[in-house]
Amino acid sequence: MTGPHTLIEGGQIATASGVTRGDLLISGERIAAIGSGDWSAERTIDASGCYVLPGGIDVHTHFADPADFGPSKADDFVTGTTGAAFGGTTTIIDFAKRRGTESFYDAYQRRVKQAEAQCLVDYSFHAMATSSGLADGGLDDLRRLAQDGVTSWKFFMAYPGRMMVDDTTILTAMHAAAELGVMIMVHAENGAMVADETKRLVRSGRTEEHAHHFAHPHLAEAEATNRAIALGEFAECPLYVVHVSSQHAAKRIGAARARGSRVWGETCPQYLFAAYEDYEQIGYDAVKYICSPPIRERSNQDELWRALSSDVLSTVGTDHATFCVEDSEELPSGKSRGRGYFPDIPNGVPGIEERLMLMYEGGVAAGRFGLERLVDVVSTTPAKLFGLFPRKGTIAVGSDADLVVWDPNAEHVISATTHHVRVDYTLYEGRTVSGRPRYVLSRGELIVDKDDLLARPGRGRYLNRSEVMAG
Amino acid sequence: MTGPHTLIEGGQIATASGVTRGDLLISGERIAAIGSGDWSAERTIDASGCYVLPGGIDVHTHFADPADFGPSKADDFVTGTTGAAFGGTTTIIDFAKRRGTESFYDAYQRRVKQAEAQCLVDYSFHAMATSSGLADGGLDDLRRLAQDGVTSWKFFMAYPGRMMVDDTTILTAMHAAAELGVMIMVHAENGAMVADETKRLVRSGRTEEHAHHFAHPHLAEAEATNRAIALGEFAECPLYVVHVSSQHAAKRIGAARARGSRVWGETCPQYLFAAYEDYEQIGYDAVKYICSPPIRERSNQDELWRALSSDVLSTVGTDHATFCVEDSEELPSGKSRGRGYFPDIPNGVPGIEERLMLMYEGGVAAGRFGLERLVDVVSTTPAKLFGLFPRKGTIAVGSDADLVVWDPNAEHVISATTHHVRVDYTLYEGRTVSGRPRYVLSRGELIVDKDDLLARPGRGRYLNRSEVMAG
Amino acid sequence: MTGPHTLIEGGQIATASGVTRGDLLISGERIAAIGSGDWSAERTIDASGCYVLPGGIDVHTHFADPADFGPSKADDFVTGTTGAAFGGTTTIIDFAKRRGTESFYDAYQRRVKQAEAQCLVDYSFHAMATSSGLADGGLDDLRRLAQDGVTSWKFFMAYPGRMMVDDTTILTAMHAAAELGVMIMVHAENGAMVADETKRLVRSGRTEEHAHHFAHPHLAEAEATNRAIALGEFAECPLYVVHVSSQHAAKRIGAARARGSRVWGETCPQYLFAAYEDYEQIGYDAVKYICSPPIRERSNQDELWRALSSDVLSTVGTDHATFCVEDSEELPSGKSRGRGYFPDIPNGVPGIEERLMLMYEGGVAAGRFGLERLVDVVSTTPAKLFGLFPRKGTIAVGSDADLVVWDPNAEHVISATTHHVRVDYTLYEGRTVSGRPRYVLSRGELIVDKDDLLARPGRGRYLNRSEVMAG
Amino acid sequence: MTGPHTLIEGGQIATASGVTRGDLLISGERIAAIGSGDWSAERTIDASGCYVLPGGIDVHTHFADPADFGPSKADDFVTGTTGAAFGGTTTIIDFAKRRGTESFYDAYQRRVKQAEAQCLVDYSFHAMATSSGLADGGLDDLRRLAQDGVTSWKFFMAYPGRMMVDDTTILTAMHAAAELGVMIMVHAENGAMVADETKRLVRSGRTEEHAHHFAHPHLAEAEATNRAIALGEFAECPLYVVHVSSQHAAKRIGAARARGSRVWGETCPQYLFAAYEDYEQIGYDAVKYICSPPIRERSNQDELWRALSSDVLSTVGTDHATFCVEDSEELPSGKSRGRGYFPDIPNGVPGIEERLMLMYEGGVAAGRFGLERLVDVVSTTPAKLFGLFPRKGTIAVGSDADLVVWDPNAEHVISATTHHVRVDYTLYEGRTVSGRPRYVLSRGELIVDKDDLLARPGRGRYLNRSEVMAG
Repeated sequence: MTGPHTLIEGGQIATASGVTRGDLLISGERIAAIGSGDWSAERTIDASGCYVLPGGIDVHTHFADPADFGPSKADDFVTGTTGAAFGGTTTIIDFAKRRGTESFYDAYQRRVKQAEAQCLVDYSFHAMATSSGLADGGLDDLRRLAQDGVTSWKFFMAYPGRMMVDDTTILTAMHAAAELGVMIMVHAENGAMVADETKRLVRSGRTEEHAHHFAHPHLAEAEATNRAIALGEFAECPLYVVHVSSQHAAKRIGAARARGSRVWGETCPQYLFAAYEDYEQIGYDAVKYICSPPIRERSNQDELWRALSSDVLSTVGTDHATFCVEDSEELPSGKSRGRGYFPDIPNGVPGIEERLMLMYEGGVAAGRFGLERLVDVVSTTPAKLFGLFPRKGTIAVGSDADLVVWDPNAEHVISATTHHVRVDYTLYEGRTVSGRPRYVLSRGELIVDKDDLLARPGRGRYLNRSEVMAG
Repeated sequence: MTGPHTLIEGGQIATASGVTRGDLLISGERIAAIGSGDWSAERTIDASGCYVLPGGIDVHTHFADPADFGPSKADDFVTGTTGAAFGGTTTIIDFAKRRGTESFYDAYQRRVKQAEAQCLVDYSFHAMATSSGLADGGLDDLRRLAQDGVTSWKFFMAYPGRMMVDDTTILTAMHAAAELGVMIMVHAENGAMVADETKRLVRSGRTEEHAHHFAHPHLAEAEATNRAIALGEFAECPLYVVHVSSQHAAKRIGAARARGSRVWGETCPQYLFAAYEDYEQIGYDAVKYICSPPIRERSNQDELWRALSSDVLSTVGTDHATFCVEDSEELPSGKSRGRGYFPDIPNGVPGIEERLMLMYEGGVAAGRFGLERLVDVVSTTPAKLFGLFPRKGTIAVGSDADLVVWDPNAEHVISATTHHVRVDYTLYEGRTVSGRPRYVLSRGELIVDKDDLLARPGRGRYLNRSEVMAG
Repeated sequence: MTGPHTLIEGGQIATASGVTRGDLLISGERIAAIGSGDWSAERTIDASGCYVLPGGIDVHTHFADPADFGPSKADDFVTGTTGAAFGGTTTIIDFAKRRGTESFYDAYQRRVKQAEAQCLVDYSFHAMATSSGLADGGLDDLRRLAQDGVTSWKFFMAYPGRMMVDDTTILTAMHAAAELGVMIMVHAENGAMVADETKRLVRSGRTEEHAHHFAHPHLAEAEATNRAIALGEFAECPLYVVHVSSQHAAKRIGAARARGSRVWGETCPQYLFAAYEDYEQIGYDAVKYICSPPIRERSNQDELWRALSSDVLSTVGTDHATFCVEDSEELPSGKSRGRGYFPDIPNGVPGIEERLMLMYEGGVAAGRFGLERLVDVVSTTPAKLFGLFPRKGTIAVGSDADLVVWDPNAEHVISATTHHVRVDYTLYEGRTVSGRPRYVLSRGELIVDKDDLLARPGRGRYLNRSEVMAG
Repeated sequence: MTGPHTLIEGGQIATASGVTRGDLLISGERIAAIGSGDWSAERTIDASGCYVLPGGIDVHTHFADPADFGPSKADDFVTGTTGAAFGGTTTIIDFAKRRGTESFYDAYQRRVKQAEAQCLVDYSFHAMATSSGLADGGLDDLRRLAQDGVTSWKFFMAYPGRMMVDDTTILTAMHAAAELGVMIMVHAENGAMVADETKRLVRSGRTEEHAHHFAHPHLAEAEATNRAIALGEFAECPLYVVHVSSQHAAKRIGAARARGSRVWGETCPQYLFAAYEDYEQIGYDAVKYICSPPIRERSNQDELWRALSSDVLSTVGTDHATFCVEDSEELPSGKSRGRGYFPDIPNGVPGIEERLMLMYEGGVAAGRFGLERLVDVVSTTPAKLFGLFPRKGTIAVGSDADLVVWDPNAEHVISATTHHVRVDYTLYEGRTVSGRPRYVLSRGELIVDKDDLLARPGRGRYLNRSEVMAG
């Protein structure tokens, strides 16, 4: 046991299996003991009146995403992981997407290098398997990447002509994934339906910003979700459906899980806390809400919460992908490219900084579920599904000391004027939440002390998931 | 921190949220620390090569059940909890059922007293709310019992004229339960259907032992389960469906859970490991398998396993209720009362001693689920649902040191010749399992060391569940 | 072929299997030929521009219902069947319910006698099998009635303590019914839930008229419907669920039908055309809408229409049971007994005169389904299910000449000031419909010529359904 | 009224809405009257003891199919419609599929011409919309064809690289179809899954004839069916799923119909009467059973029957597409191309001659449904869905006199030695059925008198479905 010792005293320790009292002794980067011994430590953190949670894991971010088309993301790895840290998220998994004709493998190496100098928290990457890349022999690259620890590959069932892959491609990849122990991820919307509806809306002059919502019907998401599940069952391959927004898609996942399918659904705060009604009548400002699948009717929210509570949906990621709404000196507006013409609005909303606070508020404080379920959906299950457990995602001896001391009584008002990500808005402006991180530790290092950032870019470490699993 | 210290070293600690390495320091009756400090202890238990699990909790036993009719149970609290201890179960919840016109409250006191002198492990009681007892003003007793920590009441939807209660009665009780935080438990079979079918079988001369199976169709269980769920949703009351045997009943529970209902289903080893085909053609010996709901067709098993894996079903209890098959010097046969006439066969099968071994074998070793799910269904979720968590049901600092050091490589042959319960058979005679308890601790005390029992009757302690919850 | 000949010329003949052109030759009481021969007839009816439909069959009326409690019905067999005739309904099936301790058989004879002198159209009776009557040995009566052609028995799953029967009773009757070819009918609401909720509403002072709606939740109807189906499947007995009002009940029926169950659901115009929103805020006048199951939320209507279109629901009856809202010289108000206290409001709404017009309007004119489906649900399927086909319910050679010449272009305004039933209101006051009967024939006799009634009380004939089936 | 008169006397007339007694007077090609007048006619047909049914309509045949690859069909329009006539089928709808780079329109004209000289019964065509044809601007052709009465277009979701079309193509066509009143037909199997599984079977040496069954899993059919329904719901376009073979696909259709979708499913005799178990162990002879989707497990049959009985499935076609098993002087074997290598077996089985006899046997005689349902699924609903009603598909005044006098007591043994189609086998060799056609009339002409054929090739008439609908 090396390194300096930190003692977290007096808190209630929350894991996915329950809440218990106990002190935590950290030695170096790891948790050395849980209990209440006569422990001495160089530093003591007082957690009385607080919960101690495993650090949040957001497996769905898009920082500094290389853009083949459209504007750059507002948040890069520095600002994005700064927001993560303040929000209690100590691990992110982003995507490696190729640029131009680059190979998947080169894209991955480029992304790791890019993140290396910037991240404040630990990070890893999913491979983004585009159709053109696969056409260029990318499956071999994917196999190689899996051996290097990139054990999750994402496919698009939407965006025909750009990123959409057909069923044959998915099946081929799924067979490889089943063999290699890789998790297949899908963006599940029927690309033909979305493109068709978009065309029809444009043709009839319905191009205003909020019409994006109509271009992405529930049916498109439900169909693709059903198909992805069928393909996964066929290939006996585990499947992770990102950003489930529609109750109808959730129902398909629930039915499949009940019959024993290895499928998991992720939802995002924007689908639980925002609604179409919020952007239906606000003109250009609707761009703030535009993402795909879209933020749906308010009546859809309850069903998603229910799905999350009952483990029909299993995780909460953010799909944090940000574009500024207005031009500023620092940064040009990305969203404005789609002013008055929804097909050109860059898709994406912020969320990484608010994720835990919102989920605590809407889940725990609102009585929808207990603290253990919160931990499960924002940390433990993501860690398990993506090969990080038990090094990440729980509070256990030997695990990384990625910890959040959570003050359940610290009111906080969410606002773009005070948040730490770079994008110029939040969907939750002015919303008061009743709990927030008091201290955040990453591998034993105190990186956030309330409103102060104590970490520097580049301290985050790359997580090779093969090595994590190997122990 | 008081009492002697015990150190469990070198094991892998399994909780419902995952498996991690670590040592456990026990101080007196409780877990004092988890980690790997320089801990000294009076006693050290070597757990290397083993898992350390929280002690099993069986919330469905019938020991020394007072019989208004029929023979006495073969197992009393001494033999029953001895079997429990050898099988790695350190807590049981049995039932308090009134005798004659006794009040529910008096029945409970009598049962506690009866158990007090006999139990080797900790115990508690559910109230069994019979129709006659309720007719005698029993609801007031139930309310009083809830305040005394008997926070679960069981109702029968079967056995018309004996224990069956009607929907009005259940609803009335559910309203009280919702108000008091009590869990309602139901035996869900449509009593009218079962009685009707029994009558028809008898009338047509189909009284052979195995015909019991036909008297309890899937439909009767599915209907009653659906109705119990509807009543629970109506009264906004949590519901626990005991001994789910039919895939069709499980489907109703799954659908309700997916829509957010607070309903949980229990299944039992006999429904997962035995099948109608096992007793269809063995004549009188079929009595061994007779319980209600019945052990069903082999084709039903897979669906139950699937339901258990996917949390459609949430716990595994035993419904351990035993009657000897043959007369012996020690004990007369109970089962023989129904020789050749199934309606007279005393219902019940053994299972408490085999429960963890079978579930490890069929669940973990067979690859149906991981160790964390095993812990969840045999210990953590039972503890949570019945007000024992986190004192029982997990491995956490401050929790009772109820622990099983589980040797995953110790082959064991299940047999009535070697088991410790008193009943003269097991349904799993000759079956080899690949893991078994190496050591069992109850509140820090080593009560089983492989094949040796180190505990004495009466050491078990009554668990007042109001006090447990109060801390 | 005897009797005078009538020729209906130039219409389009609509049956449940389609619409075709053709003339109809009636000889005496029956249809002699369909075609376009050189037919001479004493009388010719011009149907050009019109459809010719089989006369409507309403298998759910409550005329002059003997009341054990509460006020008498506003409509007796004279006024009720007058309304029927004007609305294009030429056959009704009402109920024989015992008075006091009368036997079921005596009740039936009394009802036949009562109807004999009064009915303007043909009629038959279902037996109403109350719990007290069954307790008095009524099953033997039911068997005898079946042999006399009363081949449908109705049971209540609601109204505990009054008419509700338990599952055992239903099962016993179902076995007899399966043996005798009898159709079991159920009022499917969980009586315990409704009584419980009523009690709770009263206790909390929520006794205003429209609160009736809350006392009959969807769940109560869905549960009882599910249970009735299960009992029917268990006993292999055909089942007819009267007045399905809840989409959730309809879904259970749809699921059962899809798996091959012999179950049929009836809905009523009031559930398709009226809604809770109509009576939520109208004070005392809400009594007009009070019936059980209740008229539900507007959002429920679409699902019922869909169920009816897709043969999840199979028939439209009326449950015509009327009580005046205001006192008049002719008749005292029945509904006023429940002023300000919903549990005392006599249940029932009018509908027999409007049934075909409403269903034509909402079904055919609104494009929800074709004329053949209209014929099916108001005439053909009722005839088939209750032993009247092909004598009634279709247009075929040899069938009774019960015919409606329907003018699809005759606008009509529904109003209590012009209708022919005796009750002092209609739920559809002022609603314009676009089609109505031009001529109505019963057994070859022209009984309605637009606004003129040509028939006299007592001309209706009793339909012994055993004899109908025998040919 | 022109032409000679025929009187069909003494039969029971069966339509989709019921069975009634009556004589039929035919004048020329059409039904002139139904009844029992003093009718004189040049010819009288005695139907006593028989039913009179509307002539069967088989909307799914492949006669003389032009083959781009593989051998020619054994049956051309002469032998195929001869079999049809003997089996009581008086209308067929076949497919117009382009050859090489021919336009859809030219293909249609070629097919009409080809059929003109050969057909013994009336005929029409669906357009087969292949991907290559659509790529060649075929949608304009389809629109033109719709205006010419080809109001049904078929698409393949299977056979990637050959006939499979993608979702975008189907959607585009569906929009056009919704606008033009065209019915979209789909072969619903996920082409990617089937191709993938085929490849895997071949790679592992599993190429024996019956392994075809494994290449077409239920899941592939269920997925594609679900997707087709979603596309149809999206485009608000009516959908006809041909040859539903899997209970799981049927369930998707049933669920969609219950929620009001305009989707209809067809099944075929081979899926109801034959099973995988029939060809699992018969070596080369398994080729007789090879078609796609495949003939499935026996346990699947019951569910299909249930679906057909409960109108989850709505029609029975044959997909009659025949290849000889053995070489003969007259005809080379087609099936033998796939000896020992299932991917090369030409797909298709015979059925047109047996269809009505089998459905009568398995449906009516076996008690699964009544005669009216038989008429519905083999004649009335096909006529309605494909624009032929009421000219075809029913017995009504003005309808074509396409009639089958059905003898319910004429035992018949099905055999390739006695059948009239040209293929050298039947799947039902030696099976005895209890009813068969006694006389068959097409447009008033007696074309079959028991075992004698009275019609000549070329007498069949083309049915322009626009004109039929126009009257």
